[in-house]
Amino acid sequence: MDVSTAVAAPPARSTRVKDKIMATAERLYAEHGFANVSIRMIREAAGQRNKSAVQYHFSTRDELIQAILSRHAAAIDLHRLPMVAALEASGEVTLRDWITCAIAPSIEHHIELGTPSWYGRFLAQAVVEPTFREYAAQATLSTPSFRRLELLRPPSMRDRALELSERQAAMIRLLVVHMSAELEADLAAGRAAASPEQAWRSLGDNLITAVCGLSSALLP
Amino acid sequence: MDVSTAVAAPPARSTRVKDKIMATAERLYAEHGFANVSIRMIREAAGQRNKSAVQYHFSTRDELIQAILSRHAAAIDLHRLPMVAALEASGEVTLRDWITCAIAPSIEHHIELGTPSWYGRFLAQAVVEPTFREYAAQATLSTPSFRRLELLRPPSMRDRALELSERQAAMIRLLVVHMSAELEADLAAGRAAASPEQAWRSLGDNLITAVCGLSSALLP
Repeated sequence: MDVSTAVAAPPARSTRVKDKIMATAERLYAEHGFANVSIRMIREAAGQRNKSAVQYHFSTRDELIQAILSRHAAAIDLHRLPMVAALEASGEVTLRDWITCAIAPSIEHHIELGTPSWYGRFLAQAVVEPTFREYAAQATLSTPSFRRLELLRPPSMRDRALELSERQAAMIRLLVVHMSAELEADLAAGRAAASPEQAWRSLGDNLITAVCGLSSALLP
Repeated sequence: MDVSTAVAAPPARSTRVKDKIMATAERLYAEHGFANVSIRMIREAAGQRNKSAVQYHFSTRDELIQAILSRHAAAIDLHRLPMVAALEASGEVTLRDWITCAIAPSIEHHIELGTPSWYGRFLAQAVVEPTFREYAAQATLSTPSFRRLELLRPPSMRDRALELSERQAAMIRLLVVHMSAELEADLAAGRAAASPEQAWRSLGDNLITAVCGLSSALLP
């Protein structure tokens, strides 16, 4: 098999099964909560007869949840990379530029996922679990685009007392994660007035404005 | 039995059992999540041998959860009443006055509860459940002190587009609820640097400052 064939070939059955397990787990966790979904329920809902299908791909439940978090972080990273490159080229970075580059890529990812989606509610559960709170934060902070964005922090966000910086970061994370989960739930239930894309962009604009205000007040 | 004896008497056994059930349910729900705690687990952990002890006081699980939410809202109301009376007497109410009167009473309630407490994590779960999200908001908004506070809204918070006002209210609620739940968890696990009272007051100050900034930006 030459390389071009390999690239063009459909994903191997093993990859398709892995994707199916991750998508099913995300939906079940989002709908029923981490604690109410067993590995067996995921396997059955994913249509896998082999009793160790999930364990074959993910040795533990935590590894499965972490893999879902990392996959979304990687997809968001792809949206942020061109934005951060534009900021690097622009010379001067304002507070609003920086915050837009932090928040907008996740809004674009939600638009791309379509409706209904489950990532928003899945993530909202991950950040309220002490076990995954830190992992979820690191999954974002360790992406190449976010590491480059860190180097572009505007003066008002640099050299601050660690406690206040951490509190501000926690507030931003909570706002983005939980407001997104609420909108996702509203869209899935047909409760939103606007089209999904308009609704996401409106939330994105409001979040960027609110986070700029919050940050200026907290780190004057 | 004359009235003074009746007043001085300890609460009836029935009231003590009801309190015990509510406190136990709150702790178990906070620790394990709504979906993982059965009425039977609550009854057993509360030391009740009578199999219908919980049903006798609360006909359904939802009624029990709503009773816990209402009890805390009533306790917070007692902290807010003197603050709102002072605002009513002062004549002019600034944005910061208004937001302080909205947020500080819940911080005082957390200090009063002591450490460890479970209300913060219990509430964080309630607001992410569609069933209780609205009830939890109404439990606060319908208290006498909050109804009086509504009448004192400063100009920048009046006559705004409904969608933006609702989004601002949702952001404030999310910040207060989830930041409080995180601090409560940190205190319970011995992870906070300051004394509980100092840690709560510092969070309260930061929340008031952040919410003022967020509100000024969103409703300029």
